[in-house]
Amino acid sequence: MKYPENELAQMVIASCVANHIHEVVISPGSRNAPLTIGFSQVSTINTYSIVDERCAAFVALGMAQKTKKPTVVSCTSGSALLNYYPAVAEAFYGNIPLIVISADRPKEMIDIGDGQTIRQEGVFKNHILFEANLTAIQNEVDRAYNKKLLFKAISVANKQKGPVHINVPFDEPLYNLVDDLLSYPLVEQQEEQLLQEKALEVKELEPYAEIWNKATKKIVLLGVSQPSKLLQTQINHLLKDPSVLVLTETTSNINNEGVINSIDQFLAGLTEEEKSFYQPEVLLTIGGLVVSKKIKQYLRAFKPKHHFAVHPTFGYDTFQCLTKYFKISTELFFSQFFWLTKPVESNYQAQGLAVKKSRKIAHQKYADATKYSDFKVFDLVNKSLPLQSVLQLSNSATVRYAQLFDINDDIAVFCNRGTSGIDGSTSTAIGSAMKTQKQVTLVTGDLSFLYDSNALWSQYIPANFRIVIVNNSGGGIFKILPGPKQTNALSYFETPHDYTAEHLAKMYGFEYVKATDLDSTKKGLETFYNESKQPKILEVFTPSNSNDEVLRTYFEKFKA
Amino acid sequence: MKYPENELAQMVIASCVANHIHEVVISPGSRNAPLTIGFSQVSTINTYSIVDERCAAFVALGMAQKTKKPTVVSCTSGSALLNYYPAVAEAFYGNIPLIVISADRPKEMIDIGDGQTIRQEGVFKNHILFEANLTAIQNEVDRAYNKKLLFKAISVANKQKGPVHINVPFDEPLYNLVDDLLSYPLVEQQEEQLLQEKALEVKELEPYAEIWNKATKKIVLLGVSQPSKLLQTQINHLLKDPSVLVLTETTSNINNEGVINSIDQFLAGLTEEEKSFYQPEVLLTIGGLVVSKKIKQYLRAFKPKHHFAVHPTFGYDTFQCLTKYFKISTELFFSQFFWLTKPVESNYQAQGLAVKKSRKIAHQKYADATKYSDFKVFDLVNKSLPLQSVLQLSNSATVRYAQLFDINDDIAVFCNRGTSGIDGSTSTAIGSAMKTQKQVTLVTGDLSFLYDSNALWSQYIPANFRIVIVNNSGGGIFKILPGPKQTNALSYFETPHDYTAEHLAKMYGFEYVKATDLDSTKKGLETFYNESKQPKILEVFTPSNSNDEVLRTYFEKFKA
Repeated sequence: MKYPENELAQMVIASCVANHIHEVVISPGSRNAPLTIGFSQVSTINTYSIVDERCAAFVALGMAQKTKKPTVVSCTSGSALLNYYPAVAEAFYGNIPLIVISADRPKEMIDIGDGQTIRQEGVFKNHILFEANLTAIQNEVDRAYNKKLLFKAISVANKQKGPVHINVPFDEPLYNLVDDLLSYPLVEQQEEQLLQEKALEVKELEPYAEIWNKATKKIVLLGVSQPSKLLQTQINHLLKDPSVLVLTETTSNINNEGVINSIDQFLAGLTEEEKSFYQPEVLLTIGGLVVSKKIKQYLRAFKPKHHFAVHPTFGYDTFQCLTKYFKISTELFFSQFFWLTKPVESNYQAQGLAVKKSRKIAHQKYADATKYSDFKVFDLVNKSLPLQSVLQLSNSATVRYAQLFDINDDIAVFCNRGTSGIDGSTSTAIGSAMKTQKQVTLVTGDLSFLYDSNALWSQYIPANFRIVIVNNSGGGIFKILPGPKQTNALSYFETPHDYTAEHLAKMYGFEYVKATDLDSTKKGLETFYNESKQPKILEVFTPSNSNDEVLRTYFEKFKA
Repeated sequence: MKYPENELAQMVIASCVANHIHEVVISPGSRNAPLTIGFSQVSTINTYSIVDERCAAFVALGMAQKTKKPTVVSCTSGSALLNYYPAVAEAFYGNIPLIVISADRPKEMIDIGDGQTIRQEGVFKNHILFEANLTAIQNEVDRAYNKKLLFKAISVANKQKGPVHINVPFDEPLYNLVDDLLSYPLVEQQEEQLLQEKALEVKELEPYAEIWNKATKKIVLLGVSQPSKLLQTQINHLLKDPSVLVLTETTSNINNEGVINSIDQFLAGLTEEEKSFYQPEVLLTIGGLVVSKKIKQYLRAFKPKHHFAVHPTFGYDTFQCLTKYFKISTELFFSQFFWLTKPVESNYQAQGLAVKKSRKIAHQKYADATKYSDFKVFDLVNKSLPLQSVLQLSNSATVRYAQLFDINDDIAVFCNRGTSGIDGSTSTAIGSAMKTQKQVTLVTGDLSFLYDSNALWSQYIPANFRIVIVNNSGGGIFKILPGPKQTNALSYFETPHDYTAEHLAKMYGFEYVKATDLDSTKKGLETFYNESKQPKILEVFTPSNSNDEVLRTYFEKFKA
């Protein structure tokens, strides 16, 4: 006997099996015992045990980010569930299919003073695509009700790429076993159809194609995006139109000589005249959220006449001038849109690329000559990254620095830009590393690393996983911002400290390499990616007092 | 210039000053800059900087638990706020006055794709007593609206002893400064009156006093409770009634030879005949949540005819037989109830105390003779605790073990029993230690300790703070429970590991002492509480394979 006797647990597990769920991250608990017992026994499901639920949810998020398939994270009742919330919100805004399955007390046991019992229904209401509050099974009606909710939840996670919550009340006994697991049909026909994306009506597209075909200045702005060969081909095609300037972010995973790939660099040196020149008639936004604050400020000031947003879930009016939202995947949108559009004569793209070229030369000159600093370390780390590897970036200063450098086309780049939190980057990177043979390197700041230090408390970290910590003894971004320094409260922003990762590395079985200047950083990087028995941390200590000046001077160079 | 220019920030800070808020825990961020700048400059307010918001909120909770006064925890926009949720739920069910103040984007900037922006309004809806969603100030009406919400929020936290959420939208500029802080009147008269608790109508009490005066078997069950001299006096008075048996939990902070202070011990050995004998006619529950599962099971099986619950916030029907809920503080309830009640002749209390006496003798015999184990370590640690100190307990096995031992009357005992989570016990203990000169000792399990390891990332831990980690290499409770061992998934419950606290101790500046057997534990405890320059950790490694047997045998002894 190995499967849970509890019928509701059987239904949940069988639904996951039928819907091709393969990854389940479990946190220990008693109320969720029927699920733990069941999931761990199914041969088509990999189960992982992670104690800290905040990390567990980000690990599942990282796995889903890599596999693009719904990943389950499952916990006991009570505050355990609340620790999932940061990752749930990230999944919501970052469009990651995360399935939260929480065990709950039976309804009649809630708010009567029992332990580990809270009001779980609706707890993620603000940031969840669908909520399946299952019911204790008394009869056939309950069975059908639960079955419908389960399929719907998994289908929404699959189709809409976001978080769903399945809440499962369990009464005791929790540990009884039986021999067999329910066998379920595959996803019902009707649900299967739901998974197929619907194309747009041609007549919905036509008026916008017409506007497009008349405009001589068009910006296509691409935010966070999974690596996609089709999208890459489509962008390549788009660039044949000289009236189109494509602006991409590091996290867009699109590469072409013809795109403006360092937006901040491009914008930093623009004269007022150039700013007016580059004001687009049409702005087309595709992909997820955008890191660059400068582009947001620029487009809010120099608003396009038309802003079309393409996104399967959200149609954000980021620049306060949205004129049309197409609720569709970018790939399907372009497959239809290209039939209706044609290149327009213009010097727009050529001018933009000329600016880009001059920026790249100035950048390289500055990077080569500049002194040891966060900036310089990013330059070195970027050049050191192995081809065919995965780069994970933590938030705040790290992702902003990364945006300034050309990252090799062969490297896939990820960052939690849904909520842009510093709270789960290490766990996410580890989750991603668990689902690929490729080398995954996390580049992170010291605060972000310490925040998620429990990520290292894991038996699943592959030996080829690497972490580069750029340790500037606090939140370096608060020195880059001009505001905090002018107050009497700088220490409440920067949070200076002298902790290192050395003890954590020892504790959690990482090789640890330390660098404190240019030479030791170079030396550390030389052998950093070599095969090793343990994962590795390279901690690079940078001078917190000059990092901001190096960055400020960098941007000033473009203005000269 | 040192105060924030932003008027809304000024209003928030001035309201806190006027309402005698003295403790503000801040996590770094940019959106909350106006609050950070302001709070850190007010001379009547102590500010603390803690990066990990999950820890920050539990630290604030620990401070509020100690001071019994509202404590503020304040963060930037986005997922930062979500990390507060575990502590918010604990405050909700544990009746702790926690004031969450979150910075937010202006309303029009939400869900348009900006970074660190989520739907903050209503995010704690399920577990918050009051939500003040402040509005950007355009005119006098907005000013009055915000002022009213602010006073209401602080007043609810004060009066109802629970969490409230103040959400404050800030537009840029965030760092502008001015010379002065708004001056506010003290809490408005009307609000002041709200803080005075209202007594019950005598005629509401009379029928229940009548039932009370007729019953010869009455149980008073006391859950989590702050140390209170008045309540202690009232319990002493209550015990003069021979028909009353008072059952207290370790966390009730009430001491008297005449109470049954180890409920599980008392219940464990009862014969079926005795169980029937002790079935109460009236059950009066006071204080917060109850740890003992055995008493819940007993009273659900042997239901009293009448169950009166007294609590200022919740009237839980924990035993599914609630007949009357008095929404009032225990102290005020008794002051009124005692006028209407009189002692009733009965052998109920005397019989109960005779059982207690025999249990204590059996307990002592067993504790003295038993081998090295979690049980034995608890016995030793309990005996080692300094008088006039504070004992903080983490959840799961720890608090359950503690319930079996007589803890000295001079020691105040705390545990997060609102949600009974393992997620923030260390942070809570540190928060408590920050607000007392007394020695605070946290006794915790290894999983609970590792879960909240970021608690140690703090510059505010007093040198006399002590942590005893009972390290049984995993979640020992899952070996105590009979269920998990029968499954093929024990490792997903117990989560065995070989981590220790040694590296964390080094990293965060704790003295570290290790014990692996009876002698080294005794030796470690001998000097453990001595004055020291750094806080200390004593990690006691116990044999994970025999702990459960020692505990099982213990309970079997009472049946013999």
